[in-house]
This record gives sequence, structure tokens and C-alpha cells, in this order.
Amino acid sequence: MNNFTFYSPTYFVFGKETEKQVGQLVKKYGGHKVLIHYGGGSVKRSGLLDRVKASLDAANIAYVELGGVKANPRSGLVREGIELARKENVDFMLPLGGGSVIDSSKAIALGVPYDGDFWDFYCGKAVEAALPVGAIVTLAASGSEGSTDSVVTNEDGMYKRCADGDILRPKFSIMNPELTTTLPPYQTASGITDIIAHCMERYFTKTKDVELTDRLLEAVMLTMIKEGRRAMTDPTNYEARANIMWSATIAHNNITGVGRDQDWGTHHMENELSTTYGCSHGAGLAVLFSSWMRYAMKEDVLRFAQFAVRVWGCEMDFQNPEKTANEGIDRYEAFIKEIGMPISITEIGGKEEDIPKLVESMFHGAPNHGNFIPLTKEIASEIYHMAL
Amino acid sequence: MNNFTFYSPTYFVFGKETEKQVGQLVKKYGGHKVLIHYGGGSVKRSGLLDRVKASLDAANIAYVELGGVKANPRSGLVREGIELARKENVDFMLPLGGGSVIDSSKAIALGVPYDGDFWDFYCGKAVEAALPVGAIVTLAASGSEGSTDSVVTNEDGMYKRCADGDILRPKFSIMNPELTTTLPPYQTASGITDIIAHCMERYFTKTKDVELTDRLLEAVMLTMIKEGRRAMTDPTNYEARANIMWSATIAHNNITGVGRDQDWGTHHMENELSTTYGCSHGAGLAVLFSSWMRYAMKEDVLRFAQFAVRVWGCEMDFQNPEKTANEGIDRYEAFIKEIGMPISITEIGGKEEDIPKLVESMFHGAPNHGNFIPLTKEIASEIYHMAL
Repeated sequence: MNNFTFYSPTYFVFGKETEKQVGQLVKKYGGHKVLIHYGGGSVKRSGLLDRVKASLDAANIAYVELGGVKANPRSGLVREGIELARKENVDFMLPLGGGSVIDSSKAIALGVPYDGDFWDFYCGKAVEAALPVGAIVTLAASGSEGSTDSVVTNEDGMYKRCADGDILRPKFSIMNPELTTTLPPYQTASGITDIIAHCMERYFTKTKDVELTDRLLEAVMLTMIKEGRRAMTDPTNYEARANIMWSATIAHNNITGVGRDQDWGTHHMENELSTTYGCSHGAGLAVLFSSWMRYAMKEDVLRFAQFAVRVWGCEMDFQNPEKTANEGIDRYEAFIKEIGMPISITEIGGKEEDIPKLVESMFHGAPNHGNFIPLTKEIASEIYHMAL
Repeated sequence: MNNFTFYSPTYFVFGKETEKQVGQLVKKYGGHKVLIHYGGGSVKRSGLLDRVKASLDAANIAYVELGGVKANPRSGLVREGIELARKENVDFMLPLGGGSVIDSSKAIALGVPYDGDFWDFYCGKAVEAALPVGAIVTLAASGSEGSTDSVVTNEDGMYKRCADGDILRPKFSIMNPELTTTLPPYQTASGITDIIAHCMERYFTKTKDVELTDRLLEAVMLTMIKEGRRAMTDPTNYEARANIMWSATIAHNNITGVGRDQDWGTHHMENELSTTYGCSHGAGLAVLFSSWMRYAMKEDVLRFAQFAVRVWGCEMDFQNPEKTANEGIDRYEAFIKEIGMPISITEIGGKEEDIPKLVESMFHGAPNHGNFIPLTKEIASEIYHMAL
């Protein structure tokens, strides 16, 4: 096990009707004027925005609002948000949404107190100061409600990059599973895929003797297989949604990932797919992960066999562990397909001739990708081809 | 799943030689003068106390020290610590030890800013203010390094009671598994038993649809079975000690217990054993838990069968789930015995005629015990008898 530090000071408020506490929570964490940040009209149609405003009014918290966040959030709206927040003396960011809205809010939070361009933080500049963020989560997927990171796409070149630092953990996150019961199946399935992928990026490691975090990651994945199926067939099932929602947080606040090297190569490859083809992040991961595993398996067949046996219930073939490992990957792929996700680049509109451009874009100013398998341009290209 | 809040702001610093960072950490968290609190001479013999003082000196942090904490820490030393801390203007508590030392420090931390008797907080008074605590952990067991609680025995009547509140979570906890490799087998085994018990107190619940936390608790227990065995047969194995040490934290910082009713009846019954017979807390739990399970099993046989199958690797007998459930309890008991723990009250020096006194003491000023099985005096007495 590697040495590590772990610091997760987010105050999670989980359960039915918890969004009504938002005014008091903003006050508790020192906010006076918030920027309510959201995507399209769903927060209006569902009445969530009105409930949030009522709670803020009751706590005498002033607010401005900025909607329009798209999936895979863009730099243009972030810049607009920074300008608005400065002009209006906003001192607290309040995203209502999933990972895209929360990540866009984190980017604005970074940009407001910074003299330079917020994008610096997405090119490796150390994250040190940011406005406080409190999130109201409407989509179980990214885990951004408890995580240290923010992913944004720069419209100048369409590069999708990540900023990271403990200060980006939200001060509080309000998580009401009821808010997720009206999600369309595609978004639900994208979330399920993303949550499992966050576990897999941590699971495939060369760090030895990480039994506890192995088991914790398996726990989340096993839960997602059961509750993911239940949410797909019975979308309004509160209990399935609740288990999925807390799984999203546990999968990515890094309690399951401490003390071990992590991979993240597939996430980096995915960034190019969602940016190029406009698919959801989860769909992009769905398309790539089986191919990444089939490529990576030779590095440590027994780790993949463990994944097959413990997560996918395969029987260990002691004469032929490679067969077991492959069976695990097949079952993963079958599950992803079962919940309605694409499993090939072709299905999301990609073409073989795009691959050189995907690879070039991925490596633009970012030479390092992956740990379990350090990706070269050649390997990335091979995995994209396998995923066609 | 129940509604819940979760807030765990402790900064964990885990790994080899991490105790050298203590001076900088105390400074970071605003301490100027610390009370170094510890048990017997082992922190001196091991050189830990000297290393800690050197780090404090280097960071210009002043200190006083108070040793003498016993297992199952006592109110007398707590009062002495409160007086010393006030006289010396201590503003930060620094325990070096396991749960007893950390809990004693939390009690002093509660008492210093409070006008009344610190014991009030152990009789139900709300915990609102306390000196900050930073822990250096030398024993993997109680999870007090990440938990909200403190257990102390009042020498006036020998009542062992608990105070609880988010403010009792340490500001930081330094966790170096190397410090645990010299522990005697009995203490190691007591710790292993305590960690598994913290999972079991949460696992046996009537709250429905808690698949994620079920799986997370199973993850910790499975890890403890594997790594516990490894540490018992190979005590200096760093990797086993590291997995056990982080398991202790995960088992009790409540990340595995949110959203579900928890039991804790066995812990309350145990308090009487360690207070009366001077056994370790882990030994007292070892003695009681199989009997508690055999008594409680009828409440939900399938939950015990799940425990047997998922944690202890039993094969499900679909014709006779009770047989499976019993087999799981038997395997738990065999494991506890294998690592050298007692499995009957007789083994720790208890006698049948003591039972009425144990029961009376347990219910003295504390009428409520247990959730999965609400304990009456009659039930507690029956379980004590079963454990003879």
C-alpha cells in the first residue's frame, strides 16, 4: 500500500426533501450572495429552482442565476459566470445539477479570485483558492458532489481537461434521490456506467496489498449491478435511486482509492469521444472500457480474473485464468449493453478515419495518460481501433 | 434507506514515518501548546515520544505531557488532564495511542472549555465545544481516530458511557502501520475483534434496501478475515498491518453505516465485562457476539444467512436458511478462537452469579440498548447466560 493523505470535509445531507435546507446551509457556510448555476429547463419544470429560491429567501440569502450549462461543460459559459459573479459580488457558488453543472461551478469558483485565466488550473497550475461551492445534486454519476476535481472543455481547440485540488470539494452537498427518479433511461444508464468506470479506473492497479480498497471497490460495483438493473426496470424506485446516488459519491470521493496507483487512461481517451461526437461521458466510457480491458489484461491476468470472479460472479478456471478474465470482461460488456449503452465507437457516430485526430487531440499538451497501462499514441490508437 | 447526514472532516495522514509531520500539522490546525497524552512506557521505549517532541520543537510548538491512560480509560485521569490543560493554557490535545488514549483526550478536550463536570456529556448532554484533537494512532481497533465518539469509565460507580458529536472527530490523525507491528498478539487480536464488531453492530439492521452499506461492511469484514490472519501469523507484515489500520477507520467513521438503523446492544453489554473483569474491549466483544447472534437470529434469518454466505463463504442451504445462518455464526466463532480470543465469559473470569449485577449496572441511568433487538433486562440476562 502506498502512503496517502485523505481529506473529505464535505457535509453531505442525504434524503427526501433535503433541498429545503439549502438556505440554512449556505448561511452556515458563510455565503451572502450565491450564483445559482444550472443546465436547461428541467430545474424549472420540476419546481426545484423555485423551492431553492424560497429556501434562500427565507434565509435572507441574495442570489443571481446563470443557466445554460451543457453536458461536457464549456469554457465560454465559465467565463460568463466569472464575469457575472464578480460584477454581482457573488461569494458562494450553488450548482443545481449533475457533474457538468457542478464542474462548471467549480471552474467559476476557481476563476473569480484569480487574476489570470481560469484555464491555467486546467493546464496544471496548482489549485489554491476558490469560492466555496455547495451542490444540489440531480444526477447520480460524476461524484463531483464529493470530489476534488472539475472537468471542462475549452472551446478554443475543444480540449477537455481536469483541474484538481482538495479546495474543490464542495462545502456541502444536498442529495435527494427523488430528484433523479424522472431522469430519462439514457442519462440513468450513462450515470451507472460512469460510476462503475470510476471504480474500474481505481481497481486496475499494480500496487500490491490493497485488499481493503479492492473489496470496497467491488462493493460499489456489485451494488451498481443490482441497483442499476433495478433503476433501469423501475425508474421511480426510490431505494434503487438512493443506493445509486450514494454509490456515485463513494466511487469518486476517493475513500475507495487511497493508497494505490490509479489508471484513468480510459477517461482521458473518452474525453475525445464526448468532445468529438457529443455523446454523454458515460456512453463514451461504455464504448471504450471493454477494449481497454482486453488490451490491458495481459499485464496482470489474475487481477482481471479477480474482477471476473468477485464482481461478475464468474467461476475461476484454475487451468485457464485468462478464460475467466475474458468472461468477466464479456459480462461487463453484456451488462453495459443490457442497460442500453453503446459498446462501439461506430454506435456513437465515430469512424475509423477520425482516430488519428482523436489521438493527436488527446496528447496535445498532455503527454501522460494511464498508469496500469501508460498510453503511448500507438497504444491509444490500437484501443480506439479495437473499440470500433 | 433512512435520510442521513455525513460529515467527516478529519485529515488522515497514512503511511511510513508520518509521525514526523506532527509539528507542522499541529501548527496548521492552530495549536500553540499541546498536551501529549499517552498510556504506559511503550511510547517511550519505542522512541515515538522523542520523535514527536522533536517534531513539535522544530515547529516551535510548546507541550506538556500526561501519561498513565489505562485500557478502558477512567474519569480520574480525565479530571487530572482537564486541570493540567487549564493550568498550562493548553489549546490542542495530542493523544499517542489507541482508542483508550484518544477517547481520554476527547474527554479532556470536552472538559476544558466547559464550566460543569465533563461527565455530563457522557450522560446525554449535547456535545458542542471542545479543544481540537490530533491523534497519532498506535493500535488499530477503536476507529476513534476518525469517529465522533469517546467512551470513558466513571470511577464513581464504574459506569462506562459514551459521548458523541461531530466536534469530537479529530482534526488530523497520523496513522503509521509500522507503529503497530510490535503489538503483542492479544492486543492485535482484540483490535481485529473490535473492528469486525463495529461492522456487525451496523450490519444487523431492520432498515430495508441498504445494499451499498451492506456490501461496504462485508468488504471490511472480508478484509479483516484475510489480513487479520496474516497479521497474527506474521506480526511484522507491514501490508497486513496497513490494511487492518485503514479498516479500523473505515469500520467506524460511519461511511459504512449511514442511512441505516444500527444495533450497539452488544457493545453496551460488553462495557460491563471489561469494567468488571478488566478484559480488553475486544475480548469482551469476542465473548458476547456469537451469543447475541444466536439470540437475535430469529428476528431475520435471511439477514444472518446473507452474513454467512457473503462474509464467511458458507453455501446457502435454500431448504434450510437457518442452518446456513448458524454455520456463519459458527465460522465467526471459530475465527475469533483461532486468533486467540476467548469465546465465553468463564474464560475471562466471569461467573454466573455476577450476571444480575452486570445487568443492573448496564441499565443504571441508561434504559435503552440495542435496535435490531431492543434489550430488556431479561434479554440481556439471557444473552449473558448463553455466553457463559
